[in-house]
Amino acid sequence: MEAERTLRDEELAGLADLAAQLRIDSIRCSTRAGSGHPTSSLSAADLLAVLISRHLRYDWSYPGNRANDHLIFSKGHASPLLYAVFRATGAISEQELLECYRQSGSRLQGHPTPALPWVDVATGSLGQGLPVGVGVALAGRYLDKLPFHVWVLCGDSETAEGSIWEALDKAGHFGLRNLTAIVDVNRFGQRGPTELEWDLDTYRRRVEAFGCRPIVVDGHDLAAIDEAFGQAREATGPTVVLARTVKGKGVPEIENRPDWHGKALEADQAERAVQALGGVRQIRVAGPRPAAAPPAPAAAGPPPELPRYEKGTKVATRNAYGDALRALGVRPDVVVLDGEVSDSTRADKFAEAYPDRFFEMFIAEQQLVAAAVGLRVRGYRPFAATFAAFLSRAYDFIRMAGISRADIALAGSHAGVEIGPDGPSQMGLEDLAALRAVHGSTVLYPSDAVSCAALVAAMADREGVSYLRTTRGKYPVLYDNGEDFPVGGSKVLRDGTDVALIGAGVTVHNCLAAADELAREGIDARVIDLYSVKPVDRQRLLDAVRDTGGRLVVVEDHYPQGGLGSAVLEELADLAEPVRVSHLAVRGLPGSGTPAQQMDRAGIGAFAIVGAARALA
Amino acid sequence: MEAERTLRDEELAGLADLAAQLRIDSIRCSTRAGSGHPTSSLSAADLLAVLISRHLRYDWSYPGNRANDHLIFSKGHASPLLYAVFRATGAISEQELLECYRQSGSRLQGHPTPALPWVDVATGSLGQGLPVGVGVALAGRYLDKLPFHVWVLCGDSETAEGSIWEALDKAGHFGLRNLTAIVDVNRFGQRGPTELEWDLDTYRRRVEAFGCRPIVVDGHDLAAIDEAFGQAREATGPTVVLARTVKGKGVPEIENRPDWHGKALEADQAERAVQALGGVRQIRVAGPRPAAAPPAPAAAGPPPELPRYEKGTKVATRNAYGDALRALGVRPDVVVLDGEVSDSTRADKFAEAYPDRFFEMFIAEQQLVAAAVGLRVRGYRPFAATFAAFLSRAYDFIRMAGISRADIALAGSHAGVEIGPDGPSQMGLEDLAALRAVHGSTVLYPSDAVSCAALVAAMADREGVSYLRTTRGKYPVLYDNGEDFPVGGSKVLRDGTDVALIGAGVTVHNCLAAADELAREGIDARVIDLYSVKPVDRQRLLDAVRDTGGRLVVVEDHYPQGGLGSAVLEELADLAEPVRVSHLAVRGLPGSGTPAQQMDRAGIGAFAIVGAARALA
Repeated sequence: MEAERTLRDEELAGLADLAAQLRIDSIRCSTRAGSGHPTSSLSAADLLAVLISRHLRYDWSYPGNRANDHLIFSKGHASPLLYAVFRATGAISEQELLECYRQSGSRLQGHPTPALPWVDVATGSLGQGLPVGVGVALAGRYLDKLPFHVWVLCGDSETAEGSIWEALDKAGHFGLRNLTAIVDVNRFGQRGPTELEWDLDTYRRRVEAFGCRPIVVDGHDLAAIDEAFGQAREATGPTVVLARTVKGKGVPEIENRPDWHGKALEADQAERAVQALGGVRQIRVAGPRPAAAPPAPAAAGPPPELPRYEKGTKVATRNAYGDALRALGVRPDVVVLDGEVSDSTRADKFAEAYPDRFFEMFIAEQQLVAAAVGLRVRGYRPFAATFAAFLSRAYDFIRMAGISRADIALAGSHAGVEIGPDGPSQMGLEDLAALRAVHGSTVLYPSDAVSCAALVAAMADREGVSYLRTTRGKYPVLYDNGEDFPVGGSKVLRDGTDVALIGAGVTVHNCLAAADELAREGIDARVIDLYSVKPVDRQRLLDAVRDTGGRLVVVEDHYPQGGLGSAVLEELADLAEPVRVSHLAVRGLPGSGTPAQQMDRAGIGAFAIVGAARALA
Repeated sequence: MEAERTLRDEELAGLADLAAQLRIDSIRCSTRAGSGHPTSSLSAADLLAVLISRHLRYDWSYPGNRANDHLIFSKGHASPLLYAVFRATGAISEQELLECYRQSGSRLQGHPTPALPWVDVATGSLGQGLPVGVGVALAGRYLDKLPFHVWVLCGDSETAEGSIWEALDKAGHFGLRNLTAIVDVNRFGQRGPTELEWDLDTYRRRVEAFGCRPIVVDGHDLAAIDEAFGQAREATGPTVVLARTVKGKGVPEIENRPDWHGKALEADQAERAVQALGGVRQIRVAGPRPAAAPPAPAAAGPPPELPRYEKGTKVATRNAYGDALRALGVRPDVVVLDGEVSDSTRADKFAEAYPDRFFEMFIAEQQLVAAAVGLRVRGYRPFAATFAAFLSRAYDFIRMAGISRADIALAGSHAGVEIGPDGPSQMGLEDLAALRAVHGSTVLYPSDAVSCAALVAAMADREGVSYLRTTRGKYPVLYDNGEDFPVGGSKVLRDGTDVALIGAGVTVHNCLAAADELAREGIDARVIDLYSVKPVDRQRLLDAVRDTGGRLVVVEDHYPQGGLGSAVLEELADLAEPVRVSHLAVRGLPGSGTPAQQMDRAGIGAFAIVGAARALA
């Protein structure tokens, strides 16, 4: 299966012919659609022709084959080229390519998504495909232990993203010899020259300094490309093929021009280009095949025995996160990542028990989330944690994970002003808003250790992006071991019909204290633990509205916008009956102080809740 | 004012004495507070002793002096050291240091914020101080043209953040010889060894490859440090001083230990440490002073003449953004940045007219926002733009800008499904939620060119983080030139009392079309253009509730969580009268299609609005 080192003339001619087809098809589909990025496709056509003919081991009729190589277009805007590749391999038809590209309802979208079975992840936000590729390669090297290779086509513009350097750093750190980045250095970005243009030497030095092996090639020299890919496959570490290319290559009237990004050719231009390239072809590529498909990682095994806690004892939910992860470790598909704060998030509990399935990503939250997505591509159930505040560093990656419909579990510790003296930079105060707004996400915020452990277990089987918010401090265990905490559910901790106090996480404890005080005043307050922030327990809210005459106090350790309060209000928006919600949230900019001082100061402590309830009741 | 190259023995002794005081004070304040990061302060004490005594030109009694150097602690957790520096310079008293550190209401917070006049920006989210320093240095070199120097103390752990490499890349690209990063390589992060530990050679090669000059020093050799800083000040490009240090240096029982991060010493440990370091000192540093203060950049000049548009003609709001920026260019304090998409955001209109005040940050959104913050530190009014979707890449930076209360203007183009065929990766669909949840933010979403231009002008004088969302496609101009669009306001475009249709941006046009159709059916719909999403026009909403009997349709080109709908619901949460809100938003995952197809498919087009209004009315 090794590529021969010397290509015969007829082989070279065949590759050139295929490259011409890839160019022609890139032009045809984008011109037909009236938009797209043909020039960015043309520069990389020779690279892809060689890759799919001689190096990419892929069973196009069975994308689920776990021995397949992976092909990720980090430069997702080169979708015409990717789809031209799919058509050359027979994965899609010429008709679909030409008629459906960029059309409403089509799977051939402007940028690739896993709506296509040969696409691992959605790309189109630059600098993300390579970090995800690192995650896929991590799985291959350390978990699957299979000989598949991960090939990532990158643009040169996207090397300005720090995330590319997080990825190469980690590729080197983990010795990912099964990863090859192919950088299409066509020297033009969207609006003109890139920062480094064709300064291949600087690219080379950067790649080398970050622990990867650079190979500089002429990206239109088929034999040189072939040689480079052959070396990459046999390398002892990660490889970066730095290919000097020409944007728009093969179509003289748009070649190497700074003003030809993201534009389809006009019909007459396209016709001339297709003629110049030798006319439409019907080449069908039969590239190398992988070995037989090995089995997927099994979720099977003994059912996890969740940790048990004694009611009333004080336990931090972040500790319960760690305990539950360790318990879930009996499942061989569960893997854990952390951003150099595992002694805070308590992911270290898993790391101690299952060091082979724990990945330390250091302080690189973008790569942390991207690696989780990559591990999920290989069928694992990744849990990735850092402080809630620092998940904001990876927000674009989480957004894209939502578009990829990647089943990943994220945990953010140290949420809210409750963290105390460290100050606002360390406080997650916008995480509920941000994570709720991710497509298909689940947002959970348990108030005690028992519910936290149960929700961690639920996340391991949940679809899409799940987010768990944990609390720094220790609070009493509220629930019995073994109690059920369905996603989308809630709990009533005190019954009452004068007013409903709705909290989640730490504010549930403040609501309980407030209810005690209110009871002394003769006000019967219902306390609802809305641990499932998205989806929210609509029926429980409707009951509360009905039973209390629409008197609700919602309390959250979060800024007022987009969090728990919004979740409740959005759910009740269409009700005909009147609902009055008193919304307590962190309205000022916090500073330092003890947790209790912080919560009181922010007006989310028991005292403020009592006042709000009194005013409503 | 140049540092002498050879330090006399008594000078070295004086520096050592000061370094001991900085260590002692770092220990004392954190032990007294019971939390903090003394060991991370101890490793850098010698670096700071030399810096403030001999290199940092700073008038401590006048932090507003524009000739002052800048000192940024990118490793914000070393706040004990920073505050010990402030006490050594006389900026704060010993009493404040000891009694107030990390206390409720104190300005000496766990991590530094501009609550202190000597602090430029809030730090504590790692990897941000250096990118902001790049912005400050950009101002110094290209706008102020003043000889101040920017000194940034970085941790070694934070070099794992891609943002550090975005920063060094830009420092090199812009030739920022007025910038020095000092990396405190103490080889331990929070939970153990850093990725590179003491591999100074790899650090050196990375820094060099990214276009900066590395100087490797023993971070406890006072003479070597002095020599390095002297070279840095005289350098022809950016310098990175890579200082090999020992965590906890000077306190044998915690020196060079992986398990001593973020912990205060116990009282007895602290006492022993202070003794070992020679006891409490009362040294007052008199370091070099800057030249006299030059004037700040003036907002004065001829009042900008905003662009004019003819009512009814079709103009994209992103074009109006560019037009308005160009008009604002008469103000010398207005500067513009873009993330390599200026032909899309239309920031290119400013770049053409005022190339000296335009900074191309290429595809590095984190650095884009950080540079804006840095330029604001120097008194400029920065406008930074990219696609709305890609601002999510910089969300942690925007969050921290909110904590810094930095007056920066952000613009996100290509919002929502309206962009058409490019697909979800390019669509801002969570930006309203994310930006609303930033402390002190303003969120604006104009529907036409006239209001867009007026709001851009308003942003130039707005406090805090302002965000403007613009639309890709062209829509009719709705307003007369010269009309007023106050932040926090709204417009009624059609009057009616059966139902109120509330939109912002592109959905205002869909609401107008729906109102026309409803009128044909005999339903009088009020149409409200809620261009100010935060703050929202409460009175207008109350009027609509009163006049329509609480019948509202809110329509947004955004996911349902945390956006325009939530803004309306949060504002009306406490009303006693019933309000029924029919909330139309993008609930599925979009694909490709034309703008009209996309909006119809998402259920935010005129047809869906008519249906929702009918159901309510």
